[in-house]
Amino acid sequence: MTVFEPRNRDFAAAVRDSFERQPFMALMGAELISVTPGACEIGLDHRPELTQQHGFIHGGAIGAIIDSAMGYAGYTLIEADSTALTVEYKLNLVAPADGMRLVARGAVARAGRTLIVSRGEVFAVRDGEETLCAVATQTLMVLADRADKPA
Amino acid sequence: MTVFEPRNRDFAAAVRDSFERQPFMALMGAELISVTPGACEIGLDHRPELTQQHGFIHGGAIGAIIDSAMGYAGYTLIEADSTALTVEYKLNLVAPADGMRLVARGAVARAGRTLIVSRGEVFAVRDGEETLCAVATQTLMVLADRADKPA
Amino acid sequence: MTVFEPRNRDFAAAVRDSFERQPFMALMGAELISVTPGACEIGLDHRPELTQQHGFIHGGAIGAIIDSAMGYAGYTLIEADSTALTVEYKLNLVAPADGMRLVARGAVARAGRTLIVSRGEVFAVRDGEETLCAVATQTLMVLADRADKPA
Amino acid sequence: MTVFEPRNRDFAAAVRDSFERQPFMALMGAELISVTPGACEIGLDHRPELTQQHGFIHGGAIGAIIDSAMGYAGYTLIEADSTALTVEYKLNLVAPADGMRLVARGAVARAGRTLIVSRGEVFAVRDGEETLCAVATQTLMVLADRADKPA
Repeated sequence: MTVFEPRNRDFAAAVRDSFERQPFMALMGAELISVTPGACEIGLDHRPELTQQHGFIHGGAIGAIIDSAMGYAGYTLIEADSTALTVEYKLNLVAPADGMRLVARGAVARAGRTLIVSRGEVFAVRDGEETLCAVATQTLMVLADRADKPA
Repeated sequence: MTVFEPRNRDFAAAVRDSFERQPFMALMGAELISVTPGACEIGLDHRPELTQQHGFIHGGAIGAIIDSAMGYAGYTLIEADSTALTVEYKLNLVAPADGMRLVARGAVARAGRTLIVSRGEVFAVRDGEETLCAVATQTLMVLADRADKPA
Repeated sequence: MTVFEPRNRDFAAAVRDSFERQPFMALMGAELISVTPGACEIGLDHRPELTQQHGFIHGGAIGAIIDSAMGYAGYTLIEADSTALTVEYKLNLVAPADGMRLVARGAVARAGRTLIVSRGEVFAVRDGEETLCAVATQTLMVLADRADKPA
Repeated sequence: MTVFEPRNRDFAAAVRDSFERQPFMALMGAELISVTPGACEIGLDHRPELTQQHGFIHGGAIGAIIDSAMGYAGYTLIEADSTALTVEYKLNLVAPADGMRLVARGAVARAGRTLIVSRGEVFAVRDGEETLCAVATQTLMVLADRADKPA
């Protein structure tokens, strides 16, 4: 397990602040559970508005929260005056999202100067038991001297 | 360009019906634009609720509509008594979704008996001009004798 | 960590036998290091024939050994009279393959009846130290009643 | 169809020169068929050394030639004093590579300053007829002021 040293000592506040400025996360009802150097966890409660035609949470919603969890995992490792954009992500849906709640966990695999590659897992939680429902990979591009927050 | 022969002559109605039973598409405000054999087009107007921290439509929302467009492209080619599930999808975000509206177009590349592989493109539309903002690939698994619609 | 129960008690011999019938692995000089339930490890020594224009092992060779390592990881979990085909794989090259030797490790994330999803990592080994150079994901399709070995 | 304007007027010679300095392409027997702005085509004749256990060309070899075809498609658009590295690629194998020869075609979807995204298709050729056997996507990173050729 790689130990990452954040370049921004206020990395957790920066992530929480950025997450709160993402209306799409609020529309879905996603919440930031935890932020540590190189890792981020996002939760999403099952709500009828999030489902597809079989009553499970939509694959697009699963993609959205794991994209965010991996993105913020990488975000913990960038400079205070930088921001980061998703270059690409890939998602394998390995089981139906059959739970009362989803937990998406992103973790950095490799943090370069320009690109950060993270991996993620999404679990469906039912009666306290977690079942793996998706695995993912993401590439993030770091944009230096371009603050995430508007002036 | 491959010409596909649908096995369900009511394929377009089946897609429209399935799409309408996806609450997550309604939550986002996505609309089905067109359905033809092996292809599907979905539109999404820019709304503040769909954005990320820079005011562009969230990558997760882009992923959700192109996943659906590719999925329904494949769906046009399955039997009436079958359904289909996304196995995996991959998305490259090639430009910011800087438009008043997004159009996601999915098209089948190869339809096998069990698996269907589709490709997709998402365009940002501004002043009538389309700019490519994402390219995607998806694998769908066909589940025979398992109707999409609940009994 | 999931513990997998092989359905073929001769799974290791089946993998070794299949690997030996892959001329492309021999052409590259790849060797099977280990086979356990749900996991497989393949090694590749640096040789000038395997390189790209900068003298590192070619990304295509890295893709080939991690595709095989993930594929055989899944192969350990199928029935004796089945075979398996790669549906798709995805590779992120996170650092140059700058070593005397590469080690590719594949591990099953989820084994379904028809599809098996695995993840992989490739490490460059230099002076006994491993550096992560690639991460990967693969989907495998199980073909029942279709032996891997020719009659 | 996007029309690309090369920044290096000797782009075709630069690609041919770089391809010839890739020993792994020579080991496989791959040949450069054509190079145009934003596109590249690579051929590979079926040879027993390239196969997997069922006698078809190995998925790893398919990945290697389409990775190269997409990479050189992007390479046609970079400056003369730059080089490019594969960040990631993804391959869907949609049919067995059942032919006397494979043709891999890469084409740029979007060329940014730092990243280039390309798509690719691999066809198996038998009796003059082409069958699609794989579709792919690739992200390339441009490294400025770092010549591909050694001094």
